[in-house]
Amino acid sequence: MIRAGILVTGTEVLTGRIQDGNGPWVSERLAEEGVEVAHILVVADRPGDLEAGLRFMAAEGMDLIVTTGGLGPTADDLTAEIVARFAERRMVLDEEMEAKIAEILSGFAQRFRLDPDALRTANRKQAMVPEGAIALDPVGTAPGLVVPAGERVVVVLPGPPRELQPMWAAALETEPVRELLARATPLRGYTMRMFGVPESEIAKSLREMEAGGLELDAVEITTCLRRGEIEIDVRYRDEAETVAEGVRAGLVQRHREETFSLDGETIDAQVATLLLGRKLALAESCSGGLLAARITDLEGASEYFAGGVVSYSNEAKSEMLGVGPELIEANGAVSAEVAEAMAIGALERFDADVAVSITGIAGPGGGSEEKPVGYVCFNARLADGTAIARDPIIPGGRLDIRERSALVGMHLLRMLLGEEIGTKS
Amino acid sequence: MIRAGILVTGTEVLTGRIQDGNGPWVSERLAEEGVEVAHILVVADRPGDLEAGLRFMAAEGMDLIVTTGGLGPTADDLTAEIVARFAERRMVLDEEMEAKIAEILSGFAQRFRLDPDALRTANRKQAMVPEGAIALDPVGTAPGLVVPAGERVVVVLPGPPRELQPMWAAALETEPVRELLARATPLRGYTMRMFGVPESEIAKSLREMEAGGLELDAVEITTCLRRGEIEIDVRYRDEAETVAEGVRAGLVQRHREETFSLDGETIDAQVATLLLGRKLALAESCSGGLLAARITDLEGASEYFAGGVVSYSNEAKSEMLGVGPELIEANGAVSAEVAEAMAIGALERFDADVAVSITGIAGPGGGSEEKPVGYVCFNARLADGTAIARDPIIPGGRLDIRERSALVGMHLLRMLLGEEIGTKS
Repeated sequence: MIRAGILVTGTEVLTGRIQDGNGPWVSERLAEEGVEVAHILVVADRPGDLEAGLRFMAAEGMDLIVTTGGLGPTADDLTAEIVARFAERRMVLDEEMEAKIAEILSGFAQRFRLDPDALRTANRKQAMVPEGAIALDPVGTAPGLVVPAGERVVVVLPGPPRELQPMWAAALETEPVRELLARATPLRGYTMRMFGVPESEIAKSLREMEAGGLELDAVEITTCLRRGEIEIDVRYRDEAETVAEGVRAGLVQRHREETFSLDGETIDAQVATLLLGRKLALAESCSGGLLAARITDLEGASEYFAGGVVSYSNEAKSEMLGVGPELIEANGAVSAEVAEAMAIGALERFDADVAVSITGIAGPGGGSEEKPVGYVCFNARLADGTAIARDPIIPGGRLDIRERSALVGMHLLRMLLGEEIGTKS
Repeated sequence: MIRAGILVTGTEVLTGRIQDGNGPWVSERLAEEGVEVAHILVVADRPGDLEAGLRFMAAEGMDLIVTTGGLGPTADDLTAEIVARFAERRMVLDEEMEAKIAEILSGFAQRFRLDPDALRTANRKQAMVPEGAIALDPVGTAPGLVVPAGERVVVVLPGPPRELQPMWAAALETEPVRELLARATPLRGYTMRMFGVPESEIAKSLREMEAGGLELDAVEITTCLRRGEIEIDVRYRDEAETVAEGVRAGLVQRHREETFSLDGETIDAQVATLLLGRKLALAESCSGGLLAARITDLEGASEYFAGGVVSYSNEAKSEMLGVGPELIEANGAVSAEVAEAMAIGALERFDADVAVSITGIAGPGGGSEEKPVGYVCFNARLADGTAIARDPIIPGGRLDIRERSALVGMHLLRMLLGEEIGTKS
């Protein structure tokens, strides 16, 4: 088993001012290669802490250490130097790299009229590499490094994700990393997604399947609740394929209604496919535009998304969607009746084929005994009157209720367009 | 100087399937207490890695170690046991805690009809605590722990943020933690926010101020680009107050136009205050509802938010906002003219006092030489015709352009309502 540690450097990350995405990203890439990640360690730009982190990972027997950040031109960017000391190599000037960086910087210098002396100093600092290391071409201005260090390899990557991610591919191509990964066995795997089932039910199903003779120990199953959906990730080595397929079949059999993805495809991608050739309109109240934002997150949404109304006030519901004020008066703005009228209004006003409406109480105020905070009415509807209506009470705080409302809207679209299980109203 | 390490446990976090918010959250709380955080270490639920993490932090001389996660009822929840071994204390049953957990669980058991035997086992496991440790009352079902371990203290907290965060306050009240924190000197500090200035300009201003005699070494300044705004965080000990105030004054003087917050207040909070007593309407195209979602994120938004139209198609712009088809034909849907007509339409249709419109090219397709991807037209407008128009080219990918568009919309609202610097059109 090849094991790896990831060392994330950066005071902003350690203090919580910036959320680190590099550690998890590198971790996922390593898992794909069959490497077991033992640690993600975040330290500030303090030489002592950085060095201690490297020594810790070496002492724990890591075969591979990946560092992120600290490759910039300023004095507190120390990673290359500290890694050199750790690998017992001195820093030398890589003249070829110096020329490459100079060329990149000359473009900046002209555009932004930077001080040429300051630039030359920065340039030289970034071209210093540990002797015998492999320098990876800069994506921004900082080269990455692959540094052999005794029995292990240290891969040194820059902090900005848009530099780090392309450079990862280059690191994989180097001889020391290739040799190391040749000894790893990549895991195979799949991801299933479910909606509307508690995590504990999945645990129960797995226990039942195990009791029925399925050797779950042969595969690695991670179940997690992710943004309101259950994600079940199954990883396995070739010889456990039968067990892995048994898990998938057993779970589908027990949770057919709730399973919407067998291969990791997201609800967003599914809905986008189902909407092709149609015209969607939205009428949102408590979700306040979150469903529209989610739909338009995907490129190409203009193919099928006509538009939406965020009808936050009662007047907006009447003026913009034609919901009768007397209907609101009689049933309340949060009611199945108003949700239906909003969906019908959206279909008509946008001349659409399919519409979803959402009206609910996101809180923290506005709840009552009959209609508590979290009570949300949905109506997903085709122009021919086929519709699905729902009115769950969604748990959690304001943000949870709003986000979950948009998610329920997505799943109602899937049910309406994918399976035609709606009831004619 | 009191130093601390944070040990985050959980396979889902280490594999990148769930993003850890606990490490950064605890780190921020510790900084407020004047504790220097040296590491955030993420490990899987493997006993060896967990123990190695504790030993590493002890070897590095941490006075305080905070662990998160691994306190649940199942077999892979090992933190309490590993911490006990690390602190050289045996596990004993806390009968008072057992009774408390039993009471919490009996509610669940009735509601969900759980197996009482399985429950009793889980209950007993969670009531086992290291001898001599202080148990913190459960927020969910798992108690937290404060465990003295030689010269240091280990605080053991549950993984779910809604359990961890309230329990933190209880941990601070315990004698061992109080004694430790009494030796720390809390830093004072402030946060400034700017919009529309590059980070490098702030660095330049700071260099100039230092050259002018301000002793920047006496304070800790972190500058970072966070969701399109510059956040400048200044931390200092009492004796450096004059320098810290000098930094604030110097930055404001040099970047008066771009500075919108001297005390950390967010643009969202500022806009919410400015909107009180008014009625806002939105007309969004490329931002697809993100500005409406941002406005309605804050509770109480229904006081001032009438509603919005996500007019993704040209037909929607005409039908829902009264933008003349010939205007779109003549200028294109992404044009200052159409943005203006959208804002006027939103004011009228929602009978509002203030409106913001956004129309742009979010990409990846749809760009041209004249109007490239990222070209976005804005119009922020009062009912009396006072308006601010902008048409920047926003860099980045589709998601960046969409999010930044919503952010620009927020800042235009601030400029329009806060300073009345608009031009009469």
